[in-house]
Amino acid sequence: MKFNLLEGRHLKDIASIVGSDRISTGISNLELHSRDQSQHPPSLPEAVVWPVNRTEVSDILRYANRHLIPVTGWGSGTSLEGNPIPVFNGLVLDFSLMNKIIEIRESDFQADVEPGLAYQDLNEKLRHKGLFFPPDPGARATIGGMIANNASGIRTVRYGSTRANILRLTVVLADGEVLEMGCRASKTSSGYDLINSFIGSEGTLGIVVDATVRLRGWPEEFSTATVNFGDVETAGKAVFEIMRSGIEPASLELLAPECISVINREKKLGMEVSPTLFIEFHGASGKQLEYVMGIANEICEGLDCYDFRQGIERKEREELLNARYELAEMIRRSHPGCSHIVIDVAVPISAYPEIISMARSESRNAGIPGYTFGHAGDGNLHLVFMGKTGDEKEWDIIDMISKRIVETAISLGGTATGEHGVGIGKRGFMKAEHGRSLVWMKKIKDLYDPNGILNPGKIFP
Amino acid sequence: MKFNLLEGRHLKDIASIVGSDRISTGISNLELHSRDQSQHPPSLPEAVVWPVNRTEVSDILRYANRHLIPVTGWGSGTSLEGNPIPVFNGLVLDFSLMNKIIEIRESDFQADVEPGLAYQDLNEKLRHKGLFFPPDPGARATIGGMIANNASGIRTVRYGSTRANILRLTVVLADGEVLEMGCRASKTSSGYDLINSFIGSEGTLGIVVDATVRLRGWPEEFSTATVNFGDVETAGKAVFEIMRSGIEPASLELLAPECISVINREKKLGMEVSPTLFIEFHGASGKQLEYVMGIANEICEGLDCYDFRQGIERKEREELLNARYELAEMIRRSHPGCSHIVIDVAVPISAYPEIISMARSESRNAGIPGYTFGHAGDGNLHLVFMGKTGDEKEWDIIDMISKRIVETAISLGGTATGEHGVGIGKRGFMKAEHGRSLVWMKKIKDLYDPNGILNPGKIFP
Repeated sequence: MKFNLLEGRHLKDIASIVGSDRISTGISNLELHSRDQSQHPPSLPEAVVWPVNRTEVSDILRYANRHLIPVTGWGSGTSLEGNPIPVFNGLVLDFSLMNKIIEIRESDFQADVEPGLAYQDLNEKLRHKGLFFPPDPGARATIGGMIANNASGIRTVRYGSTRANILRLTVVLADGEVLEMGCRASKTSSGYDLINSFIGSEGTLGIVVDATVRLRGWPEEFSTATVNFGDVETAGKAVFEIMRSGIEPASLELLAPECISVINREKKLGMEVSPTLFIEFHGASGKQLEYVMGIANEICEGLDCYDFRQGIERKEREELLNARYELAEMIRRSHPGCSHIVIDVAVPISAYPEIISMARSESRNAGIPGYTFGHAGDGNLHLVFMGKTGDEKEWDIIDMISKRIVETAISLGGTATGEHGVGIGKRGFMKAEHGRSLVWMKKIKDLYDPNGILNPGKIFP
Repeated sequence: MKFNLLEGRHLKDIASIVGSDRISTGISNLELHSRDQSQHPPSLPEAVVWPVNRTEVSDILRYANRHLIPVTGWGSGTSLEGNPIPVFNGLVLDFSLMNKIIEIRESDFQADVEPGLAYQDLNEKLRHKGLFFPPDPGARATIGGMIANNASGIRTVRYGSTRANILRLTVVLADGEVLEMGCRASKTSSGYDLINSFIGSEGTLGIVVDATVRLRGWPEEFSTATVNFGDVETAGKAVFEIMRSGIEPASLELLAPECISVINREKKLGMEVSPTLFIEFHGASGKQLEYVMGIANEICEGLDCYDFRQGIERKEREELLNARYELAEMIRRSHPGCSHIVIDVAVPISAYPEIISMARSESRNAGIPGYTFGHAGDGNLHLVFMGKTGDEKEWDIIDMISKRIVETAISLGGTATGEHGVGIGKRGFMKAEHGRSLVWMKKIKDLYDPNGILNPGKIFP
């Protein structure tokens, strides 16, 4: 690519757009915006800018486009595939000052928000209204980042990923054009859908400056259970049977024993160290939840689970959920001196037992310990491999088995990335997963961003 | 536009692709493919072709693109905005021979289907498996047509429109390229979403040749009620309050008294002639449904409904649903010598009472009787106006009030078309609804179909 370095005159021009207090070339700021939570090597931007409104974003992009300066949007840096690492340097636009709730329209189950708002802060504000924004990737993800990655989480199995919860978007395109898309009606058949091109595009097609999100009613009743199995593969079968039964859990999480050990060590939860499912139902009445939990119980007993613990109270449920959210971080902490790679495949639910079994036997055969867990109800499997930093031989093996697992998922009709996005780490699988579609993705990229200034080096191999 | 007329040599070439028994220039075939169920004037294609596989579709499109011959896909002609009327003549591709269920993957809640399959035929096959494909536009809509129009229906308020129920698509592009998109995992964050550009594009970007659709479990329990109100505006308020309560009906339909009269006359159902809501809940247990129906009851009583009739049995429920499906047709039949126009706006649910009230007073003030009904839970309002065919003065008034209603819906944050698509009839509102987005829709059109051969004359003003 043919980008220009940021020179003094560029910095001066950009400072004249945002004010000199909202642009920085200080090394600590550059370093803070050089890495996400993945193992991908950091890369420093040349400057960080903190815009406060769409006009500033538009002016900056117009300028950057004219001067061929790469621009990468930044939420909170919690992504897991290097998605916002500015590999071609240039400018990072940090949205932490555009973090307002513009309006909550409670009666429409909608909120208008700025991209830098953390979804947890939105949900905190919504709590006393009995509403919430369902996608829950954990960490302090911002809504802008969630839109960029089509983030999902523990309750996606019931409420859908970010894509299913966005009604309107305003994005700034590479040349500074401000584009508003969508409407506030809950359904429409009016012309081409443009919004969905931007959701999951990882900031490579445009930069979100505001969004209307769909809210849901906070459930009146919860019912939660943990279930223990003899082996992970059987737990995987139980997941398949539960989903197939149509009882629609609100969460259905799998944790292999090695994950339970890490949680017990850090959180002192004293959980039984065995393959475990975490099941949650949301509903309007206790009777209803008893009924569906009863079906889940029958399925698990039929597969010889050895414990089915129901009636978990709110405090314990929240501890469990928090442990699940922090799991990847806890795994990393428990391996000092190591780097990690996270598998994030998703497959059709009937193939879930097969991908688990395949992935775990690859890992066993190669002698590389992996941590297996995932949003099982979505057919989404995570496997974290830890390898000694710099040990090339070990990393060659890890890379090889990771590759095999992803290729197997694709061959089963699945995807290289269920929720973390392509970023840097999954670019190599795009051809295998998408074939000719990848050519059309590139045409879409060239249409919206002909100079390729937006988050270059991502998604495409 | 600069299209070529179909000449003898073209017909011969196309016949050599599909065989001469699957191309017709007979007037009765041309007439059958010249109009849909709207009032838009018919326009004859020059030939109708019945392809049987994607290779034929690809060969035909490649040929048509080279010779600048318009091509319009045809499902069953049940659309309501002139969407498949071949206004520039050319070829119509009738998909009635591509109507197979390729595979039902029961355990993944998925089916692979051909575009000419009627969704009712799919649901018939699925019934004994306890599954169904939820979007339900009524009539004998084909799945290809439903994808083209992003169709929805009575149960969309719970299960989403067609867009929410498609996982994979294969389309043939204008130049004959066969493009496969999406995957079979229930979620993915892998690269740009291309599928959603084609859903709702009314066959102007590509022609669907197969699809993987998402299925849902047929509910174990149903609970249905009809509720009568003193006026339509109050019924609209009840809709808003029910949706706001978060109890998630599976249907929430509004029928104004004039619609009930038509139903009673044709179906002899003997319903109370007053503003009526039809409410349905789906669930796993009777207790749960009692609970949510109780809330609906409280809301309606609070708004002085004068009858809330619960516990409607299956036979009556199905009669009511069928009457609702056939309503537009019955209205038309009851006005011989008249033409009709159907308003299909959708607004944020809080604006539903306002749009109803505005639309009905416009209609009252102009002295034009309208039939008000709609998928109320989605904020989707239909109004059918009947005017004497050829009475220009009456039609000027109808067009004027229709325009005002649509413009009001847009100004309330809504859309010109909730489910019928843009077709011919809503093109005039695209600029007002989409602004600059319309320019980008046109760029997407030019990218996929640079010669503009696919269903020309639709969507764009």
